[in-house]
Amino acid sequence: MENGVISHRGKVLTTDTMNPNVKKVEYAVRGPIVQRAVQIEKELKAGIKKPFSEVIKANIGDAHAMGQRPITFLRQVLALCSYPELLKDNKFPEDAKNRARRILQSCGGGSIGAYSASQGIECVRQDVARYIERRDGGIPSDPDNIYLTTGASDGIVTMLKLLVSGEGRGRTAVMISIPQYPLYSAALADLGAVQISYYLDEERCWSLDVRELQRALNAARGHCQPRALCIINPGNPTGQVQSRQCIEDVIRFAAEEHLFLMADEVYQDNVYAEGCEFHSFKKVLFEMGPEYYKTVELASFHSTSKCYMGECGFRGGYMEVINLDPDVKVQLTKLVSVRLCPPVPGQALLDLVVNPPQPDEPSYATFIKERTAVLTALAEKAKLTEQILNTVPGITCNPVQGAMYSFPRITLPERAIAEAKEKGQAPDMFYCMKLLEETGICLVPGSGFGQREGTFHFRMTILPPMDKLKVVLAKVKEFHQGFTQQYS
Amino acid sequence: MENGVISHRGKVLTTDTMNPNVKKVEYAVRGPIVQRAVQIEKELKAGIKKPFSEVIKANIGDAHAMGQRPITFLRQVLALCSYPELLKDNKFPEDAKNRARRILQSCGGGSIGAYSASQGIECVRQDVARYIERRDGGIPSDPDNIYLTTGASDGIVTMLKLLVSGEGRGRTAVMISIPQYPLYSAALADLGAVQISYYLDEERCWSLDVRELQRALNAARGHCQPRALCIINPGNPTGQVQSRQCIEDVIRFAAEEHLFLMADEVYQDNVYAEGCEFHSFKKVLFEMGPEYYKTVELASFHSTSKCYMGECGFRGGYMEVINLDPDVKVQLTKLVSVRLCPPVPGQALLDLVVNPPQPDEPSYATFIKERTAVLTALAEKAKLTEQILNTVPGITCNPVQGAMYSFPRITLPERAIAEAKEKGQAPDMFYCMKLLEETGICLVPGSGFGQREGTFHFRMTILPPMDKLKVVLAKVKEFHQGFTQQYS
Repeated sequence: MENGVISHRGKVLTTDTMNPNVKKVEYAVRGPIVQRAVQIEKELKAGIKKPFSEVIKANIGDAHAMGQRPITFLRQVLALCSYPELLKDNKFPEDAKNRARRILQSCGGGSIGAYSASQGIECVRQDVARYIERRDGGIPSDPDNIYLTTGASDGIVTMLKLLVSGEGRGRTAVMISIPQYPLYSAALADLGAVQISYYLDEERCWSLDVRELQRALNAARGHCQPRALCIINPGNPTGQVQSRQCIEDVIRFAAEEHLFLMADEVYQDNVYAEGCEFHSFKKVLFEMGPEYYKTVELASFHSTSKCYMGECGFRGGYMEVINLDPDVKVQLTKLVSVRLCPPVPGQALLDLVVNPPQPDEPSYATFIKERTAVLTALAEKAKLTEQILNTVPGITCNPVQGAMYSFPRITLPERAIAEAKEKGQAPDMFYCMKLLEETGICLVPGSGFGQREGTFHFRMTILPPMDKLKVVLAKVKEFHQGFTQQYS
Repeated sequence: MENGVISHRGKVLTTDTMNPNVKKVEYAVRGPIVQRAVQIEKELKAGIKKPFSEVIKANIGDAHAMGQRPITFLRQVLALCSYPELLKDNKFPEDAKNRARRILQSCGGGSIGAYSASQGIECVRQDVARYIERRDGGIPSDPDNIYLTTGASDGIVTMLKLLVSGEGRGRTAVMISIPQYPLYSAALADLGAVQISYYLDEERCWSLDVRELQRALNAARGHCQPRALCIINPGNPTGQVQSRQCIEDVIRFAAEEHLFLMADEVYQDNVYAEGCEFHSFKKVLFEMGPEYYKTVELASFHSTSKCYMGECGFRGGYMEVINLDPDVKVQLTKLVSVRLCPPVPGQALLDLVVNPPQPDEPSYATFIKERTAVLTALAEKAKLTEQILNTVPGITCNPVQGAMYSFPRITLPERAIAEAKEKGQAPDMFYCMKLLEETGICLVPGSGFGQREGTFHFRMTILPPMDKLKVVLAKVKEFHQGFTQQYS
């Protein structure tokens, strides 16, 4: 009986005793299909024969993993910051050295290995504010309203955390789009907040209709305390770019319904379609006049992971808060201080993104060439993806106006739906799993983002290099035709 | 009345409507005293005359900010990873290049700008596991049990989040030491969990007595659901190094009381006192036999921010989980995937820390020299700090056996305590604020870490360079004598 007391009690932490909110969290972008993809990669390495020779991960907006080359200037400065001995090296251009010196001077002890202020390095926040001012045609931005973050996700989760309170009918509810980027639903589940879903209009290129916001809000009132409205523009996973008019309508709605606005604008440079333009919520808010810009509370988010940089691994980002109650700001600053600071290399990287080489500087020409090449290629791939997918009977794809994804609708045969249900799988998960096993292409099923009942989609990045993208699209086409035939 | 509806409603998000748990969060290490220090720095810059010429931030374990130089090898590899063009450069030693190549090969697209797996880069996790095996005399470590994190804080918060559930008397409670590193109390407040405080024994060099654990647990039972026990070894802020016997006692206690163990071991290389040695909880657990190592659930944490590296800005770290329920592990992996991945430069840095230059490699000699210099200097400064502080009447300081801080007890005159209370300040906060204003030295009052009622302390890092540390200690001495005189 020596170990009797101990061994018969089982684990302290089990799925029965653990945090029930965490159990409710779902995040399809890195869900079961990706785990299977990783497994298949290992099987390929181990020599197991497959009908394909590599796994293509078109499930996540991970530009470098898909072969996009880093922007030279950004990486030069990061190398200089990491190993300042290189400041003596003639191989590095002067503007890169100047940026590195400026960043190092604002770091404790001149090292990116020191903690920064929890809100972020002051000179970086100043550069972010100036970037926003340039972007928004001179509308002022205050560095004190800028918080540097560990990717945009960190800022979004932090703001949601501040917003959540109450119990039962008083519990905070947050409006999010369907389809959505599942960080939102995951964070709300984790926080035990109520999700209010508003649907984007697939028939009208995934646009947002304020009447749908109103419908969703009316249906929720009485059961919960609606307090915030989240917008992703350009859209993820849906790729739409909101019109200026639409943004105005949304702001008016938020003002009238007394909602805190959260604008996820991480794809702000990723606008491809003719006639589309990125308008920041901040800019539109200020152009609507003091009635709005003096009252509407807004947090907007940006990141170093997307746009032309694609530097996901550095986890850089910022948020700007407008009209945040000063006492709440104190609380926000306190809250972020517990985690000490965002990663300093990511802060340095962000500084370069918001303060890139200028026309009179030596790195300018290369920088512009590299940036343009990335954005031009993305625009071509956005168009090609839409075109090819629309040639497949049973697939319809809205124009990829912006961001990095197509989100086509797929028609699935009744028999396939039935077989999926038998397996306890969402029909589009069943479809994507089969696609993965047969072609090595990893996509995320629409059910991971939310979609109208009875419709099915997948999200596919437009990031593979053009040659590979063509192969991917051809394989998807072939697979879809075979799948349809098999189950019809 | 055009804007009447909007303007009269006030803010959506106020301190009345915000998350009440966040309001309860306190984090003294970056609290009001540090904000005042930053303000004073700005005042100095603006030319305002002070009785000192610089602010010395001895409030936080930020080695590089205090002038410690980065380890050459670490930074060379980071520069190579950031800008792989440098792999062609003859200035870099081959071992640094090999490490960089190996890391880059395991990154998507060969770039540290790609997302990694959410659990961390596989080859880094393998290197961590091998490091743990070497450290613990061959006890096996499984890379699948390693999770790379954004600093140790991230791992600690994530594990606590998994552990928290229940309401009222069923609410999860977690045992933490007093004094403690305030991340713990902050995370518990944020999660709405119950804190069970056990006191370290100042009279016995801040050691941990299992009878005190028992007392604290008994007092809490019935009001809450005790589920985890957190240990910091070497101690923060208290600098004690736990004996092997003590660790065994703690593990036995956790086993008997059915508690999940969390071992914060970020100072594992920072052991200075003669006769003291670092023992990992993992190693002691396994040496206690299968009765224990097959049942006790343990998460241990490490970081790139402390030890000889002091690379706080990179936010690198890992946790190892032992006996975690496999289904809970699935939940943990899912939870960390929502934030995508820890910063990849931090992961790369961690890889170098756990896989440093070997005796037959070109960087070995310099690496050992630099590492030894840092650790030797810290040992000297630990001793000097203790010695000098103990020469001051009214200050008693335990030996700084390890970590990076002294936590001396200070005797405050009754009149000072009364004046502090009048101002609504903790007496040691009143003391530290006065010290800051008069000398520019920024310390953290003991009340920010917790202390026995009626006792007062401060935490001071031992990180300033020897010359400056001597000045700091002399100024603290002078201040304390003046303060005592003034209020006696």
